Amino acid sequence: MEQRISLVTLGVADLGRARAFYEELGWRGQEVEQTVFLQAGGLALVLWDRDKLAIDCGLPRDHAGRSSGVVLAHNVRSRAEVDAILAAAHDAGAEISRSARETFYGGYAGVFIDPDGHPWEIAHNPGFALAADGSLTIPRFGGA
Amino acid sequence: MEQRISLVTLGVADLGRARAFYEELGWRGQEVEQTVFLQAGGLALVLWDRDKLAIDCGLPRDHAGRSSGVVLAHNVRSRAEVDAILAAAHDAGAEISRSARETFYGGYAGVFIDPDGHPWEIAHNPGFALAADGSLTIPRFGGA
Repeated sequence: MEQRISLVTLGVADLGRARAFYEELGWRGQEVEQTVFLQAGGLALVLWDRDKLAIDCGLPRDHAGRSSGVVLAHNVRSRAEVDAILAAAHDAGAEISRSARETFYGGYAGVFIDPDGHPWEIAHNPGFALAADGSLTIPRFGGA
Repeated sequence: MEQRISLVTLGVADLGRARAFYEELGWRGQEVEQTVFLQAGGLALVLWDRDKLAIDCGLPRDHAGRSSGVVLAHNVRSRAEVDAILAAAHDAGAEISRSARETFYGGYAGVFIDPDGHPWEIAHNPGFALAADGSLTIPRFGGA
């Protein structure tokens, strides 16, 4: 597992309110499929519905108290890397909350939860190019 | 506020266990004052005691349920920027959970909580240089 964070997703109760808040602070992003992506250096800050995020990541209900609605993502260059990192995380003691599978956006990803309850999505997303140094640039979606 | 995340701090119950977990996945970092810093591209992943993190950020107890023990930090180049961003966040509706003040590490920082309960520390830390593009490089502390 290379040392990088590709996305930081904040679960939000009201996407419009959350987007307006960050825009008032000067951030600019793109909204696609009720998700807001904001470029933040070599990674993306993402705003997404908190309940959808928890369901998507397979967070059990009893995680609600100690999980935050914050999910880190680590994007990789192949499906094999997704499988390898999830296996290593499992061997290291992580809980696999969502086994690797194809995703609605055409990628392949799974989620592990670290020993303190922090979820990491390990993802291969062909739509989000990674530079040689691992940094991620949000593509232009063509929307707002 | 420029669009960047300087640090992602994960609150942990057992620092040694957390460090061992990430090291087993191949991450390498430095520990200083019971805090582990791991370079992750242009930002740092930080592991720190969950209770100390909550106290340091002024998170009220009733935040425990909806806050996670994840704190994002946005480092800036001057104390004036810290004050300006906290004021802007307050105007945008954020709660200021810790007013800006000098920190034990010789910097100056405050914390706001976004409308969904996600805390952001806005910090001027002369010990952590920011590159022209805003990326942060962990200094060599000289410890382990």
